[in-house]
Amino acid sequence: MSVNTFGRLLRFTTWGESHGPAIGAVVDGCPPGLAIDESVIQPFLDARRPGQSKFTTQRQEPDQVRILSGVFEGKTTGTPISLMIENVDQRSKDYSDVAKAYRPGHADYAYDAKYGFRDYRGGGRSSARETASRVAAGGVARLVIPEVTILAYVSEIGGDAIDMANFDAAEIANNPFFCPDAEAAKRWEKIVDDARLAGSSVGAVVECVATGVPAGWGAPLYGKLDADLAAAMMGINAVKGVEIGDGFAAARLTGEQNADPMHPGTNGPEFSANHAGGIAGGISTGQPVLVRVAFKPTSSILTPQPTINREGEATELFTKGRHDPCVGIRGVPVVEAMMALVLADHKLLHRGQCG
Amino acid sequence: MSVNTFGRLLRFTTWGESHGPAIGAVVDGCPPGLAIDESVIQPFLDARRPGQSKFTTQRQEPDQVRILSGVFEGKTTGTPISLMIENVDQRSKDYSDVAKAYRPGHADYAYDAKYGFRDYRGGGRSSARETASRVAAGGVARLVIPEVTILAYVSEIGGDAIDMANFDAAEIANNPFFCPDAEAAKRWEKIVDDARLAGSSVGAVVECVATGVPAGWGAPLYGKLDADLAAAMMGINAVKGVEIGDGFAAARLTGEQNADPMHPGTNGPEFSANHAGGIAGGISTGQPVLVRVAFKPTSSILTPQPTINREGEATELFTKGRHDPCVGIRGVPVVEAMMALVLADHKLLHRGQCG
Amino acid sequence: MSVNTFGRLLRFTTWGESHGPAIGAVVDGCPPGLAIDESVIQPFLDARRPGQSKFTTQRQEPDQVRILSGVFEGKTTGTPISLMIENVDQRSKDYSDVAKAYRPGHADYAYDAKYGFRDYRGGGRSSARETASRVAAGGVARLVIPEVTILAYVSEIGGDAIDMANFDAAEIANNPFFCPDAEAAKRWEKIVDDARLAGSSVGAVVECVATGVPAGWGAPLYGKLDADLAAAMMGINAVKGVEIGDGFAAARLTGEQNADPMHPGTNGPEFSANHAGGIAGGISTGQPVLVRVAFKPTSSILTPQPTINREGEATELFTKGRHDPCVGIRGVPVVEAMMALVLADHKLLHRGQCG
Amino acid sequence: MSVNTFGRLLRFTTWGESHGPAIGAVVDGCPPGLAIDESVIQPFLDARRPGQSKFTTQRQEPDQVRILSGVFEGKTTGTPISLMIENVDQRSKDYSDVAKAYRPGHADYAYDAKYGFRDYRGGGRSSARETASRVAAGGVARLVIPEVTILAYVSEIGGDAIDMANFDAAEIANNPFFCPDAEAAKRWEKIVDDARLAGSSVGAVVECVATGVPAGWGAPLYGKLDADLAAAMMGINAVKGVEIGDGFAAARLTGEQNADPMHPGTNGPEFSANHAGGIAGGISTGQPVLVRVAFKPTSSILTPQPTINREGEATELFTKGRHDPCVGIRGVPVVEAMMALVLADHKLLHRGQCG
Repeated sequence: MSVNTFGRLLRFTTWGESHGPAIGAVVDGCPPGLAIDESVIQPFLDARRPGQSKFTTQRQEPDQVRILSGVFEGKTTGTPISLMIENVDQRSKDYSDVAKAYRPGHADYAYDAKYGFRDYRGGGRSSARETASRVAAGGVARLVIPEVTILAYVSEIGGDAIDMANFDAAEIANNPFFCPDAEAAKRWEKIVDDARLAGSSVGAVVECVATGVPAGWGAPLYGKLDADLAAAMMGINAVKGVEIGDGFAAARLTGEQNADPMHPGTNGPEFSANHAGGIAGGISTGQPVLVRVAFKPTSSILTPQPTINREGEATELFTKGRHDPCVGIRGVPVVEAMMALVLADHKLLHRGQCG
Repeated sequence: MSVNTFGRLLRFTTWGESHGPAIGAVVDGCPPGLAIDESVIQPFLDARRPGQSKFTTQRQEPDQVRILSGVFEGKTTGTPISLMIENVDQRSKDYSDVAKAYRPGHADYAYDAKYGFRDYRGGGRSSARETASRVAAGGVARLVIPEVTILAYVSEIGGDAIDMANFDAAEIANNPFFCPDAEAAKRWEKIVDDARLAGSSVGAVVECVATGVPAGWGAPLYGKLDADLAAAMMGINAVKGVEIGDGFAAARLTGEQNADPMHPGTNGPEFSANHAGGIAGGISTGQPVLVRVAFKPTSSILTPQPTINREGEATELFTKGRHDPCVGIRGVPVVEAMMALVLADHKLLHRGQCG
Repeated sequence: MSVNTFGRLLRFTTWGESHGPAIGAVVDGCPPGLAIDESVIQPFLDARRPGQSKFTTQRQEPDQVRILSGVFEGKTTGTPISLMIENVDQRSKDYSDVAKAYRPGHADYAYDAKYGFRDYRGGGRSSARETASRVAAGGVARLVIPEVTILAYVSEIGGDAIDMANFDAAEIANNPFFCPDAEAAKRWEKIVDDARLAGSSVGAVVECVATGVPAGWGAPLYGKLDADLAAAMMGINAVKGVEIGDGFAAARLTGEQNADPMHPGTNGPEFSANHAGGIAGGISTGQPVLVRVAFKPTSSILTPQPTINREGEATELFTKGRHDPCVGIRGVPVVEAMMALVLADHKLLHRGQCG
Repeated sequence: MSVNTFGRLLRFTTWGESHGPAIGAVVDGCPPGLAIDESVIQPFLDARRPGQSKFTTQRQEPDQVRILSGVFEGKTTGTPISLMIENVDQRSKDYSDVAKAYRPGHADYAYDAKYGFRDYRGGGRSSARETASRVAAGGVARLVIPEVTILAYVSEIGGDAIDMANFDAAEIANNPFFCPDAEAAKRWEKIVDDARLAGSSVGAVVECVATGVPAGWGAPLYGKLDADLAAAMMGINAVKGVEIGDGFAAARLTGEQNADPMHPGTNGPEFSANHAGGIAGGISTGQPVLVRVAFKPTSSILTPQPTINREGEATELFTKGRHDPCVGIRGVPVVEAMMALVLADHKLLHRGQCG
């Protein structure tokens, strides 16, 4: 099986390979009557777009999204919204190395084991280029949840974390790292640049907060809001870990330390802590929904690694081509998009069952 | 919406509340001809069964599973397998406190916000009692993947981790903590007992390794093996974090440190490391599949917490009744079951598409 | 694959075999707060119950439904509703004939071809006994759509149709055929009794009308209301044809004859005809939704038929045991149930997307 | 909800409106390694293409399909296959009539009732133009089932049926009606031309036979092969009835007349009749799978009909523009495509569960 559709009521299906003519997403189930055109979606793609600093891949892709269906007179009609992004900068390089052998840490071997062969040009379907489709779909999802504000940022690169005391949301757009801590951003310049110059790579942690989510979204027990978020985030390229609220740190607390006591508030209940990350029993509590996502360092490094070729013989390989020294950075708009898609879906699911 | 079904080709649907007459699971899509009877499933339920030591809840439930359909002459027929477990020890206690106010950290408030009211007896549908149904369903899933061996254990309680140098799989069944490190198990006796006596609770980390998974299972891009595992694990009661392979630690490595170089082996490729946890691009690589799961300390503690009642007024509440001082312990059979269910599903999915 | 779940937002999963200990359905996604207990569901099961006249099978099944979950203090909670019906009258007959050879027209051979073997006792999973589970689930679905009235009846038996001029809804409950035409009912007594005495069987046509369906339910393009109804009805045992509105007769009309002109009405638009059966473009129009369903004569006849045994050798077989001389009759409550389930699902789907 | 995806393992999602820039389908779940390029799919689109005779709409659409993803070096890769067809001949006509009032029999009113407004240009999403996407997707599905031969034809137009004694498959491509009876084809020229000249329309019946389907495909009980076919066919624009095998005629037979006796054959069992249409218990029997589909006369006629406008006031409307006097004719390739898509899906489903 191949599963390229995500969501239950608000669903999107993505298609396309890194070096094919285009990539795209079909968003189905969107409520009718929402004001939309390309300009509503494009800014999110621009945020994810490569080649904007020396800290990301130098592939130049304008990532211009085009709406092919589902919109009439500037409004969603309730029918499928087809979004297409042309691939422009597929460099005609020599792929003979990658065609013949498996890059360690990449999906090369796994795809061959599954399908018998693979589109090796730029990683084909397994390329992070696919995440542009998610970001475009996420732009539609945001329209479904105007009550929600989503903010993601990088909280750690190469093991160097931000200081929450320095947190300034306005800083996020001021540096090439989506970093809310101006001092950390400065340190990261060196960390990422060192990795880049060494032909190496570093990992990152991205945090995402959604405020304005009302209590009651979530579909227990196998469509829990946190379970759907976990799947959404773990499915992003290079992600190896997902936490809700305190996550693994919660496993080191006592029940008293981990409690989120409730109090009467002016607009419904208030909580004196948010260890739970806004979700209890798989349902939102009205607190901010908090997710933390671990990106591994990209496997695309210049250091040759022992590997095998398609015949199973020993060889060595390093990744040529243009790559992100820290894929987690451009993961920020992707994490935001997946958050929007999950929340929008659950808003509709809740309305469907509970009116 | 309410989503009580998990899986794509091998699916299970669970039903039942903590204090209803019974709970159960319907497993659909099981291949025909597999030898099965209750005795095949019961041992897994026995492992999860409460009341076996002072370190778990004292509720006494025999958790005898009964197969009501889908089996003929000792073999699965390919039709739905209905599994039922009667609730026996629903203590007729006074629930008036819980009915009127929300226990902080529990799903009480979220369920009320979603559904307008809730079955408050023992947590109703949100009770961890539901996980018995998962374990029963997992017993069926294991039959589908005889090539796979699944082993889970507690690797950390209350912040105290095992020493992998002491790892002994044979120890896991020798202590009430599913602990593979005999020394850690001794230390945990005190940690958990202290929490129990203090009316407090502690968190835990559970690790699960599946060996024998062939390369090629997984359904990119929105049914990735790791994304499905993340959803499966995050959906277990009290879980707040999921890692695949090195997880968050990978975010602190460089590309070189995180590489899993390949070599020719006697039975296909071999890897000199498994930072990836056996999954690349959402597809299994043939290495052991490794998942790590964080359980928060149960919110059911004896310390009164500020909260609100159904009218929104301030009050205080603590959790009476019988509870696990460390819910992560009994999470071990549940984690194993979810691993089995995801892998079995993906085996069938792969066979469906790729033959 | 085995697909024993129907529906999208309101879903039900059935399980159980003709001669197992019980059968049942799990209804998931039901809105919370609906008043329910067994007495709400039982009348529909009573209508379908066998052994009530000489015109149906003599198997005696009380078909008492039991609600095992999802209900608290007399109201649906929004969690899965588990419905169980015990099998009582599994006659301990000799099944050696059916075990060894295939009854022509039955699912025997097809099940063996698919699964390699089959539960041959009373038809196992392929028995029409499963439809009791549908009727029970339909009883829940009806609660979701109080604005809709569903009425089904037999319009034709053995090629003898009712006269619509004689149509009297009050007659339907007055005869053992769910026949709205008292004169036809009298004629059918002889037709069905002749078939019964001859060890033969006759077919039937069932019509079902749902009034009160508002305009706007339906999920184009692959969840069209008529397409979902077609699947729902064609999936009932012994059904071979489904029509919406004029159905095949429409293929013999001109565009003018088939038109359903619209006029302003007191409560929204009125139509001067309903050739379309209340559905256009897969969406309800506010007119009555009309479905017609063809039931074949049951294959269970006393005339020996040439067939083959499991070894592929020629043999002869006739169906012993208790059977309906006209399965279409007891199909009436099943058709109503499937109508209710489809409509309830689409009500929630519409609300989910369009608010 | 909007459901624009069909299928379970082999799934396709369609998008696009009659007068948008393009339409398309994303086919997901296709097995890898199948030889494919545009030339494999184009002939089916050519068969459905409008404007090829005076008996179909005069809209000129080349319907050139383009494969945008999922294919590498001439073979399917197992990833989503994106198919796009540009709209070329969207005539810039005046749609003010249709924008303001509802064409009786069309989806106009239903779409407005559901979504609040609609893309009225050429019927928007509800246009039969969407069926080109189905035909393209069906071209992929055929590759999955090389063992199956699918043949559809028109068996009746305007109430005038073919004579099965004249059946000649070679004739189907020799006339503009997909008619296997040369004499009937001659008669139909006058019937359809008369309707066309009168600004009227006529209905049709399409039959489809799939040979080579092995016994064992089908997914009881809610994914029965016949139920999935019923949904597939009823969801085609203008379809109002579906029959499997003898369909409604079976309701007029006795059990003896309707029997399909079995005999030993050289390649598995043989049957002396096929009243069942190749399906028993929802599972294929190895006989030809036979489906019959009723197309209503298109509602697009030149005779003015009473109707209402968006304000609910009485008015009159007739359909301008280019239309098929008998939509059933071009339904033939669509019916074939849906048959292929359902069978391919069930082949994979069967393999997934039963190996």
